Amino acid sequence: MKALQQRVRRTIRRHALCPAGTRVLAAVSGGSDSVSLVRLLLDLSGTGGFQLVALGHVHHGLRETAGRDEAFCRALAERLELPLLTRRADVRGLAESQRLSLEDAARRLRYAALGEMADEAGADRIAVGHTEDDQAETVLLKLMRGAGTTGLAGIYPRRERVIRPLIDVARSDLRSYLRARGEHWVEDETNDDRSNPRNRVRHVVLDALEQAGGGNVRSALARAAALLREDAEWLDELAAAQMAMLATSCDDGLSLDVAGLQAAALPVRRRVVLRGLRAVAGGREVGLEHVEMVLAVLAGTARGADTPGSRVERRRGRLLLRQQGILTK
Amino acid sequence: MKALQQRVRRTIRRHALCPAGTRVLAAVSGGSDSVSLVRLLLDLSGTGGFQLVALGHVHHGLRETAGRDEAFCRALAERLELPLLTRRADVRGLAESQRLSLEDAARRLRYAALGEMADEAGADRIAVGHTEDDQAETVLLKLMRGAGTTGLAGIYPRRERVIRPLIDVARSDLRSYLRARGEHWVEDETNDDRSNPRNRVRHVVLDALEQAGGGNVRSALARAAALLREDAEWLDELAAAQMAMLATSCDDGLSLDVAGLQAAALPVRRRVVLRGLRAVAGGREVGLEHVEMVLAVLAGTARGADTPGSRVERRRGRLLLRQQGILTK
Repeated sequence: MKALQQRVRRTIRRHALCPAGTRVLAAVSGGSDSVSLVRLLLDLSGTGGFQLVALGHVHHGLRETAGRDEAFCRALAERLELPLLTRRADVRGLAESQRLSLEDAARRLRYAALGEMADEAGADRIAVGHTEDDQAETVLLKLMRGAGTTGLAGIYPRRERVIRPLIDVARSDLRSYLRARGEHWVEDETNDDRSNPRNRVRHVVLDALEQAGGGNVRSALARAAALLREDAEWLDELAAAQMAMLATSCDDGLSLDVAGLQAAALPVRRRVVLRGLRAVAGGREVGLEHVEMVLAVLAGTARGADTPGSRVERRRGRLLLRQQGILTK
Repeated sequence: MKALQQRVRRTIRRHALCPAGTRVLAAVSGGSDSVSLVRLLLDLSGTGGFQLVALGHVHHGLRETAGRDEAFCRALAERLELPLLTRRADVRGLAESQRLSLEDAARRLRYAALGEMADEAGADRIAVGHTEDDQAETVLLKLMRGAGTTGLAGIYPRRERVIRPLIDVARSDLRSYLRARGEHWVEDETNDDRSNPRNRVRHVVLDALEQAGGGNVRSALARAAALLREDAEWLDELAAAQMAMLATSCDDGLSLDVAGLQAAALPVRRRVVLRGLRAVAGGREVGLEHVEMVLAVLAGTARGADTPGSRVERRRGRLLLRQQGILTK
């Protein structure tokens, strides 16, 4: 039990998740990961240089048991004498109006709601309960889609205000910890739904990998992700610097200097194009296949490319990324 | 059938595997991959700007059926009117004397023997029959060991004289092609041996991934590997350039400039250290855990590190990588 707390503290220190004086809001769903997160942050609160100031619960309204989960979180907060903030999210509404998957819509609304609750609680960090298991599953899901270094880098220990103190810990260790403390949690019955790719990875692929590899496959995947992240972060920094030098905003989008782009090493060039496409995509998903299409325009083997939310063409030494459909929106 | 040949030709062109006038020796074991390699290279020979000049077979002497395989290759070569060169390899002997795994020893001897045969045949390229399936298996095996970008980059389409024209083709497509041509092959019964990690990945993990992912998982893994390779190759180039600037040879090893190393971005720093350790390892395997130990010495959190074949210490602004046991060898 002590070992687990030390491990979380090490993660917090190594990635500088909580600078001195940090006020943390912990996201809580009622599941074993988030209940562990709350208990562990409470254990470390104060001595760790940070303070757990509130819990935040998002009611997605998707499952019948959502009410039960909220009641569970309320009881937990009362017992631990922590304020509980809650938000309701209209996942189905957003998914339909923006043509997003339910999963994607839920994620966006969840992080938006957590941001609001953190503001309300005066918290400068939002802790979420992702574990080593989530990391391993994410890496495999990305791999199955043929992602590159950046995608395979998986879940980051920190992204802006969001921190993940449990990212180096196995879910099974968290459950042992909760059991040893006599702490309960609620099971999310949708975790068994095999129509969800993540659940298939969790129940089928990780088992097969463990059977084939013998060792601790989840840790190995997490280690691989950490190494990839190191490369990805630096390559992304280089791309951001190049982007700042090569890109110019214009009325209907963005233009990039062709000669400068062509002089950049391919890993950087690819990432600058991705950044450019994302900048004009208006929140639409941009994939590596779109980058490929634009690289063909850049190389002169294609005349133009229609990418999410924009049209890309090459003209007079500039690569033009023009937003489409602005007026009709 | 035509489509398959075009695909191989595209791989050859995209990776510039065979510059005009190239003379190619094809490695042949008798299995479906290498028989396809020979037939496809023969189909493309001449028109592809290269010529298939000989077949090379290595007799590992490990399996009882090795004699049968050699006879099969001899008959194939005679029928196709191509010279067949052969070499015997003492795999067990090398494995024991160098304390290598049988797989590792076989690989080293195989490539050495292929090099000799290529010289004998006046060939400037050695074609080997690795497929998209091998690529996918390699990526998963590396992932299970927690490798980073470079390891996960998998099998390269070309490394020095060795080329892999079938690296974008699925094994099942090759077998259909052979069947359609009425061409036979021998089955390597050790491919079913589940004590071998690669076979477990082939038969268990890839099936599970396909079940979970639905789509063509092998192609996705190959695509991921190609993207990682792009990043890895450039990072390795940067590391080679840094290495040339920061390293100095000395009597008993190598020394690296500490300030220069610390100024390098972490992905580059890690790779320079790996190169340094490999340079003094005398052929021993250097792993990422050794790089980690040396980074601790560099950061001053460890006094020294014992790495394969060498001892690393920091002294007067230099990182010293000293070969050990030179005199006692």
